[in-house]
Amino acid sequence: MSDHEQLEEFATLDHDREARQGFPEVIFGEGKTSEDLASIAKQLFERSGRLLATRASAEQYAKVLEVIAEAKYNARGRCIFIEPEPSKIAQSFRSATIALVCAGTSDIPVVEEAATTLAVAGVGHVLRIYDVGVAGIHRVLSREEELQTADVVIVVAGMEGALPSVVGGLVKCPVIAVPTSIGYGASFGGLAALLGMLNSCASGLTVVNIDNGFGAAMAAIRIIGSKKERSE
Amino acid sequence: MSDHEQLEEFATLDHDREARQGFPEVIFGEGKTSEDLASIAKQLFERSGRLLATRASAEQYAKVLEVIAEAKYNARGRCIFIEPEPSKIAQSFRSATIALVCAGTSDIPVVEEAATTLAVAGVGHVLRIYDVGVAGIHRVLSREEELQTADVVIVVAGMEGALPSVVGGLVKCPVIAVPTSIGYGASFGGLAALLGMLNSCASGLTVVNIDNGFGAAMAAIRIIGSKKERSE
Amino acid sequence: MSDHEQLEEFATLDHDREARQGFPEVIFGEGKTSEDLASIAKQLFERSGRLLATRASAEQYAKVLEVIAEAKYNARGRCIFIEPEPSKIAQSFRSATIALVCAGTSDIPVVEEAATTLAVAGVGHVLRIYDVGVAGIHRVLSREEELQTADVVIVVAGMEGALPSVVGGLVKCPVIAVPTSIGYGASFGGLAALLGMLNSCASGLTVVNIDNGFGAAMAAIRIIGSKKERSE
Amino acid sequence: MSDHEQLEEFATLDHDREARQGFPEVIFGEGKTSEDLASIAKQLFERSGRLLATRASAEQYAKVLEVIAEAKYNARGRCIFIEPEPSKIAQSFRSATIALVCAGTSDIPVVEEAATTLAVAGVGHVLRIYDVGVAGIHRVLSREEELQTADVVIVVAGMEGALPSVVGGLVKCPVIAVPTSIGYGASFGGLAALLGMLNSCASGLTVVNIDNGFGAAMAAIRIIGSKKERSE
Amino acid sequence: MSDHEQLEEFATLDHDREARQGFPEVIFGEGKTSEDLASIAKQLFERSGRLLATRASAEQYAKVLEVIAEAKYNARGRCIFIEPEPSKIAQSFRSATIALVCAGTSDIPVVEEAATTLAVAGVGHVLRIYDVGVAGIHRVLSREEELQTADVVIVVAGMEGALPSVVGGLVKCPVIAVPTSIGYGASFGGLAALLGMLNSCASGLTVVNIDNGFGAAMAAIRIIGSKKERSE
Amino acid sequence: MSDHEQLEEFATLDHDREARQGFPEVIFGEGKTSEDLASIAKQLFERSGRLLATRASAEQYAKVLEVIAEAKYNARGRCIFIEPEPSKIAQSFRSATIALVCAGTSDIPVVEEAATTLAVAGVGHVLRIYDVGVAGIHRVLSREEELQTADVVIVVAGMEGALPSVVGGLVKCPVIAVPTSIGYGASFGGLAALLGMLNSCASGLTVVNIDNGFGAAMAAIRIIGSKKERSE
Amino acid sequence: MSDHEQLEEFATLDHDREARQGFPEVIFGEGKTSEDLASIAKQLFERSGRLLATRASAEQYAKVLEVIAEAKYNARGRCIFIEPEPSKIAQSFRSATIALVCAGTSDIPVVEEAATTLAVAGVGHVLRIYDVGVAGIHRVLSREEELQTADVVIVVAGMEGALPSVVGGLVKCPVIAVPTSIGYGASFGGLAALLGMLNSCASGLTVVNIDNGFGAAMAAIRIIGSKKERSE
Amino acid sequence: MSDHEQLEEFATLDHDREARQGFPEVIFGEGKTSEDLASIAKQLFERSGRLLATRASAEQYAKVLEVIAEAKYNARGRCIFIEPEPSKIAQSFRSATIALVCAGTSDIPVVEEAATTLAVAGVGHVLRIYDVGVAGIHRVLSREEELQTADVVIVVAGMEGALPSVVGGLVKCPVIAVPTSIGYGASFGGLAALLGMLNSCASGLTVVNIDNGFGAAMAAIRIIGSKKERSE
Repeated sequence: MSDHEQLEEFATLDHDREARQGFPEVIFGEGKTSEDLASIAKQLFERSGRLLATRASAEQYAKVLEVIAEAKYNARGRCIFIEPEPSKIAQSFRSATIALVCAGTSDIPVVEEAATTLAVAGVGHVLRIYDVGVAGIHRVLSREEELQTADVVIVVAGMEGALPSVVGGLVKCPVIAVPTSIGYGASFGGLAALLGMLNSCASGLTVVNIDNGFGAAMAAIRIIGSKKERSE
Repeated sequence: MSDHEQLEEFATLDHDREARQGFPEVIFGEGKTSEDLASIAKQLFERSGRLLATRASAEQYAKVLEVIAEAKYNARGRCIFIEPEPSKIAQSFRSATIALVCAGTSDIPVVEEAATTLAVAGVGHVLRIYDVGVAGIHRVLSREEELQTADVVIVVAGMEGALPSVVGGLVKCPVIAVPTSIGYGASFGGLAALLGMLNSCASGLTVVNIDNGFGAAMAAIRIIGSKKERSE
Repeated sequence: MSDHEQLEEFATLDHDREARQGFPEVIFGEGKTSEDLASIAKQLFERSGRLLATRASAEQYAKVLEVIAEAKYNARGRCIFIEPEPSKIAQSFRSATIALVCAGTSDIPVVEEAATTLAVAGVGHVLRIYDVGVAGIHRVLSREEELQTADVVIVVAGMEGALPSVVGGLVKCPVIAVPTSIGYGASFGGLAALLGMLNSCASGLTVVNIDNGFGAAMAAIRIIGSKKERSE
Repeated sequence: MSDHEQLEEFATLDHDREARQGFPEVIFGEGKTSEDLASIAKQLFERSGRLLATRASAEQYAKVLEVIAEAKYNARGRCIFIEPEPSKIAQSFRSATIALVCAGTSDIPVVEEAATTLAVAGVGHVLRIYDVGVAGIHRVLSREEELQTADVVIVVAGMEGALPSVVGGLVKCPVIAVPTSIGYGASFGGLAALLGMLNSCASGLTVVNIDNGFGAAMAAIRIIGSKKERSE
Repeated sequence: MSDHEQLEEFATLDHDREARQGFPEVIFGEGKTSEDLASIAKQLFERSGRLLATRASAEQYAKVLEVIAEAKYNARGRCIFIEPEPSKIAQSFRSATIALVCAGTSDIPVVEEAATTLAVAGVGHVLRIYDVGVAGIHRVLSREEELQTADVVIVVAGMEGALPSVVGGLVKCPVIAVPTSIGYGASFGGLAALLGMLNSCASGLTVVNIDNGFGAAMAAIRIIGSKKERSE
Repeated sequence: MSDHEQLEEFATLDHDREARQGFPEVIFGEGKTSEDLASIAKQLFERSGRLLATRASAEQYAKVLEVIAEAKYNARGRCIFIEPEPSKIAQSFRSATIALVCAGTSDIPVVEEAATTLAVAGVGHVLRIYDVGVAGIHRVLSREEELQTADVVIVVAGMEGALPSVVGGLVKCPVIAVPTSIGYGASFGGLAALLGMLNSCASGLTVVNIDNGFGAAMAAIRIIGSKKERSE
Repeated sequence: MSDHEQLEEFATLDHDREARQGFPEVIFGEGKTSEDLASIAKQLFERSGRLLATRASAEQYAKVLEVIAEAKYNARGRCIFIEPEPSKIAQSFRSATIALVCAGTSDIPVVEEAATTLAVAGVGHVLRIYDVGVAGIHRVLSREEELQTADVVIVVAGMEGALPSVVGGLVKCPVIAVPTSIGYGASFGGLAALLGMLNSCASGLTVVNIDNGFGAAMAAIRIIGSKKERSE
Repeated sequence: MSDHEQLEEFATLDHDREARQGFPEVIFGEGKTSEDLASIAKQLFERSGRLLATRASAEQYAKVLEVIAEAKYNARGRCIFIEPEPSKIAQSFRSATIALVCAGTSDIPVVEEAATTLAVAGVGHVLRIYDVGVAGIHRVLSREEELQTADVVIVVAGMEGALPSVVGGLVKCPVIAVPTSIGYGASFGGLAALLGMLNSCASGLTVVNIDNGFGAAMAAIRIIGSKKERSE
């Protein structure tokens, strides 16, 4: 039995998802063989004209390139992806601004996973504000005006996870907090940051799973995507 | 020293918050004396023309009534509140529809806290879909069409916290999940539901703290409120 | 001292178990040398005419093949096994139908461990329903009729572990839930799924340890096996 | 608005559950007012001819008695109940034997909740084997023959939760383990017993939530109930 | 046997502690009878000329007043105390400035416990900066100059415990962080704040136990007290 | 600087320990270089005439052999050791009987660490009772008489850790329970077994750290060793 | 049905335990009605001539006094008890010395539970060394000689649980550590002390459950009791 | 894009930190490529004349040496560093004495990280007191006089973390406790030591994160550094 047949046997691809949810099915790369991943990627790309595989290795990317020449790779964010053709992107996404804020340089892989996801969704403006942890509070304050231009702010932080609380107090728009597993000792793999964000004193923050840059971007896409519908 | 003076001494009210965040300061009732709460409530109401005190007891409400005759009380949601005058509500809020979904009747206090918060924000349409836990999956499926009319869906669930995953698969709009402390034994005060929601297989869900109906509503208000700005 | 003698010295094989429990002793492969495993396997197979070694590697399998030519290997489920001769299988097992349901393709190793265990028990009909996670609820609903033909349903899920609650509401027969360690961040190695299943709102579900496909199958075998006795 | 109307507004009773699941809807008493509970109880009893309310207080029972004269109360198990008429009980239930085993006298409330649930299901033979903790191992061994007459054994234990492992080795039929919150210090509200049971060395045990006597009985009912169907 | 004799029997007062540690023995009020507490208080006050009993109730205070007329009570901080005579206070303490900063009004009991401890140590300047949580970051920033006058800053915060990180970035002096049990849901009794502070991105912060205002003050006293010695 | 000098610089060997505690200092091998370990081993052996290094690798043993020709190695228990000369062993140790009981073959490394420690102490009779887990309760019961000849029983078990409770009920002598990290899923590295043993219903059991075979043996040595003193 | 009959129905008293274990059955008072406790107490006392009920209230004691005039009560240790007649105590117990050491006065209830248990066992010399916590290390050091006269030392400590490590280094005899739930904040109900003791750097310490003074005494009794047998 | 440009893009170096905080920015080596680390190190060294990179590998050091010839490496402490020129060190640092105390030789890497940090700060006297765990209490007591010469004491300990409590009782100066991840079984990666230190019975201790030798040194530097200011 070929790899492809095994794929058929064990996985039922959810091709309707794009219609139902506004975003094509996404491949979770971890634990998949390069062959399986490439095979699924080809099917999904042919049907939807875009592609996103998260937690993907350089080795998996090499295999995908063999079957899809236009596939790109964000090495820091560990994503294989193909953005949609501009003409296929709805206006609400083309005109949207999403700010990606992170506390330290170690959080960048998680932010880049989010950035790639937004790119595949066709978000027009992605504003990167990196390395603005709260111990040097002037760094984030000096970016306040930029932050206020965003439709949604995604804040990524490890260690004590305090940055979303500060950002939440500076802007009025939705703020999505992503705890990261950055830290050591009693950070317990991101638990400290997760608990910090859930208990934020800035009201109206929401939180996604540890290191889940993809999930945060999808939450932003739900916000941008549902807006479009109503205004049309 | 009078109660009022103690208030002055110990608390700095953040009257600018309404301008900055689109929502006046909210009082957290738990642990405050009825006198303190009434005194703060009066100040905030006089300045902003609306009022919200969460986790407030009937006894605290009685005291507030002595100084603010128009104060109302949502006993199930434990909120003292005054809605804004209709003329003062922005169009984006008046026309918004927020669905409040819960898994069991025990989750209702948390949902009602959210509902009252939305009322104080001036949200025009609050759609209550109660008691549709996943063990009788037809209950939530039969409400699918209604759910799809919402701008934002807030899903409240205790025990295993599975309902948001199902709802997240049915709608395209933002879904905010609220774990509740309902359950016993190994629910560990809502931890089971919280972890379930953070690990949801429906992508783009976001989560707030356990029993935090207020926080979920504030997250919805951030989504509705920031929309307004851009369209104007 | 030879390996075999070490086996004799350190382990007392429980050859009576088959009589007492209706299933021969099973070998837990992890941490055993290939030689030890092969030696124990040979003894058990000779006595009972069937064989099951779980958590076994391809390397261990190669060694077993040297001493038992008819040994088979389920690579995904990591089991070395030999099914019983059909004539030796009780009617209650030959006519039994067990459904194996899983939420995602990553859960398949656990399901396959269960499937192999059922095969060694002689279960006649194993119904595989894979990749039907609750975020696309139509997937499991479209299999409802098939599910209702089962004597026992084993539901395997990682992440939030919500699938057993939904299945538990669709069928009347025993449902055994198996949490898997699939997930990341706050899944804490399957703890999120385990707690979710223990707190299920579908009553009468039972739960086994994380990733314990073998244990779930054994629980199903207890159900099928004890039925036989009474009807004869 | 009357209590009854509130009930109507907030709860959608699942009257089809009996047809779908073989057991009428059950009331969880904790947190309900006596009036609400009595009102729901009346509706459910009128429709199904039997009644079960768990975690119910003597005060709630008094209120139920006002509207349903035939209601009974198991004070140790904290259940209000009415058994079905014998003529309405299926043969599979009338002839079933369920053993209820517990480690210490403090576990009895949980066992009695299970016993009452079985009574409402019409189980013909409930075998109580109490106070047979493993520190005096002869106590449970002396009951081995009785245990082997059971179709299902429910084992209830707090502290280290070791009893199900021993019982699981003595019988071939399904064994459902219920951890209880009995214990102090590092029992952490039943967590020690729960973990012990999940890690049992006796294969094929299944586990329900802490103190969940009702859930264990429902699992037994699924086993007995699905048997009936097939033999008819 | 009288209360006093019981005291003698069960407790060995450590009268040398003042010489050895620069601070007299302190009474932990919780769990002591009013009589026991008053008896110990009298002995300690007579010997050292000052007094501190923490976690003390109004009822315990009443009893102490019967035997020590000059005893004072900080009701918010739950401390019974007598400050030293000014002439007995070392210059290093008289000239010291300790800032007490807290995030919300609910943290005040913990801050006041610290404040009273500092008073009993004879600290000359206690700077209270209350209710400056990070969600309104301008509040703490507007106090930056004051903060920089302190010899030591004690920062008290519940919920996500982010305030110490911000303060730690603003000042150069020692910063002692005190997590409080303020919060709900996933704050887990202060665990979220504790982990946040231990993982602070501001380097050189130190942390004491949850709600331990006394301990933080004692740490400050060690800093001030050891300075004195060297300069003399 | 040579290795030996580094040893001198960083470690102060506690040569008085043997006089004070009845057992020479023991080397913890993990994390030490083979050279450091061999150097320390030589010093300790020369002074006390016996040797014990726990958690030691085969590679470390090879290095020790270069400097101490009589060193032995228990590969399963990962100990390098030299027993004392018989003439140097006190009568209380020569005549002592310690039973080592374990639940499964995977627990053997921990038991062997205990066995080697007892050998270095000069214990005359070590009774090994292996692989007698409670799921086949007849296995341990058939050894009851042997168990009753022991002065101390050390019971080693992973998974649910139930064996010490059963053994504790069979014997009157001291029982020391050792949880092991054997298990998977919700065993959480031995936490399940540890909690089970701490909550044992058999009174008078004591517990040591997870996998701490050495510690259990040392506890037995304290019991045997202090006996000697009094009788002499 | 009378209370007595209920006792008969639900509890099987283990009258053989004294023969088998050297100590009569003990009553755990918590959660028992005064009537039940008094009834059980009477039976046990009549058979064994001594009595121990732990975790017993003054109210339960009053009821016991009605049926057993000679019952005594240790109010601090919450035990109802009757010591054996001196003539019935074995020599090994009469001549034994057990030291009870505790860190702070708040630990005394746990120590007193142990002391009463030892009294009922007939231990001749109980050496109380109270309030010798490690922060004033001279306090325990000044008692070193006394400690060395003990056959067994029981060390009771809350907070960081450090005292057993220090004592373990001072004596050669068995040391049993009892963590207590004394402490606040991050003591987590005694978990901090429990973990501290399990990880003690003093080898050969053993640990019992949190607050389990009774269990520690029983462990000491196993040590003393088994010695007797061998020497006779 | 060159490495250097990537550095520019992703990290904003905080060159003002030295002015604001009295210590230049420090590099956290873990997870950085050798090239990135060397590039950042060069920039920081050129600006501030000193250098500290923690958690740095020998491989990273080799790369740094290529660009900064004077870089040194503390292999045990895993730090790359350059001390300041003596003439640039403030008097308060030159004359300061910091004691570094540790319980066992395994704790040395953490202590050496602290020592190197203090060297980079220019601390004149670093007093190393190693391997003085509490199980041999005489070891630390014999160093009491030395300890009392210190301005600050940093105590590093794993396992039960008891050493800071003892040291805290011996000295009057600030004591900073550092839990280490040394230990096994129920040490849970340093959690046991962390909780022990937070619950210390010696008042006025403060605690930093697990294995955070750098943080403890920075806390000491805050104490020494702020002293200077006031005296000038």
